[in-house]
Amino acid sequence: MKIALIGASGTVGGKVAEALQKDHDVIRLGSQSGDIRMDMTDTASIEAAFAQTGQIDAVVSTAGKVAFNSLQDMTEEEWALSLGNKLMGQINLTRIASRHLSDGGSVTLSTGIIADHPISMGIAATTVNNALHGFVRAAALEMPRGQRINAVSATVLRESLGAYGPFFPGFPAIAGADAAQGFVRAVLGVETGQVFRLYEGL
Amino acid sequence: MKIALIGASGTVGGKVAEALQKDHDVIRLGSQSGDIRMDMTDTASIEAAFAQTGQIDAVVSTAGKVAFNSLQDMTEEEWALSLGNKLMGQINLTRIASRHLSDGGSVTLSTGIIADHPISMGIAATTVNNALHGFVRAAALEMPRGQRINAVSATVLRESLGAYGPFFPGFPAIAGADAAQGFVRAVLGVETGQVFRLYEGL
Repeated sequence: MKIALIGASGTVGGKVAEALQKDHDVIRLGSQSGDIRMDMTDTASIEAAFAQTGQIDAVVSTAGKVAFNSLQDMTEEEWALSLGNKLMGQINLTRIASRHLSDGGSVTLSTGIIADHPISMGIAATTVNNALHGFVRAAALEMPRGQRINAVSATVLRESLGAYGPFFPGFPAIAGADAAQGFVRAVLGVETGQVFRLYEGL
Repeated sequence: MKIALIGASGTVGGKVAEALQKDHDVIRLGSQSGDIRMDMTDTASIEAAFAQTGQIDAVVSTAGKVAFNSLQDMTEEEWALSLGNKLMGQINLTRIASRHLSDGGSVTLSTGIIADHPISMGIAATTVNNALHGFVRAAALEMPRGQRINAVSATVLRESLGAYGPFFPGFPAIAGADAAQGFVRAVLGVETGQVFRLYEGL
């Protein structure tokens, strides 16, 4: 399977690459590094990247930034960054990548536990992640040629506790390699329109 | 109670005004009509409107536009309209109105059944409505001075079936006056961080 991975330089993206490249051809698309340079906030850049990949069987995004601030202090610029990057970046990626996906191919997007469990300063993340959960449910009904789309919503990674642990007091943490299995399941499974919540039961 | 209502010129907004003005002072804020002119997509306009209302006890929004199109044909401009109007309009309204709300006052936003039940051409509505459901849940945890925030998600109105019925095949319809009761409940009740789904059990 030929898989385009956006965000391979990140913690979870690196583990997803490790898990998938054992048996598949993983093409890394990134703004700062990777096999093909792509700026997810620029549709022309996304178009150019997929013109280079040629036909692919799966697209996996582990990318997307949101601003962290309080409801009262969040600026319009911070909201615009959050909506333009993690939300519209992944929406535009889906729309464009779909045209380059094989019949039965799949798109897998990333959200996160803040969708269901708000944290301090996380209001944009809760908003954007829920938007993506809605998008995935609706997009699954429109994907052409048997294509599938799902989202993976992970809890905080053990590898990220040093940097982000204080924002997730008492939250369950999982290993990056275990989070990567959520993406493997989305890519190699048969489900569509789903959110794989990697914290249910934790 | 002094209540600012945005969207009173619309079908549901008109019924909300009727229901609330029996016992309360309803100030209509609208872009084309109303007691005070306000453009929900312009934060300076929102600020100016609430400088005129003075302190209020509740803010109710029955306003917000989204574009209707397919995943593949939706343009970036249509996404920007949808996010800028119904989503960011109501988010900015919440942030600004909160400063003018009395202790224990409330904000009530509008979403809609497409949040939970996608329809043809409705992918932006599903996305934006889910974003607002997440926003309301997170914002409820940050509202100052005992203030509350909820969303009302109505199904299609009987009064709107002529215009929108074909987009909601077999969906349950309710009378605008019944939909208005969802807003009355949000304003006069005690709950916060909730989505009142006016189609559960229908």
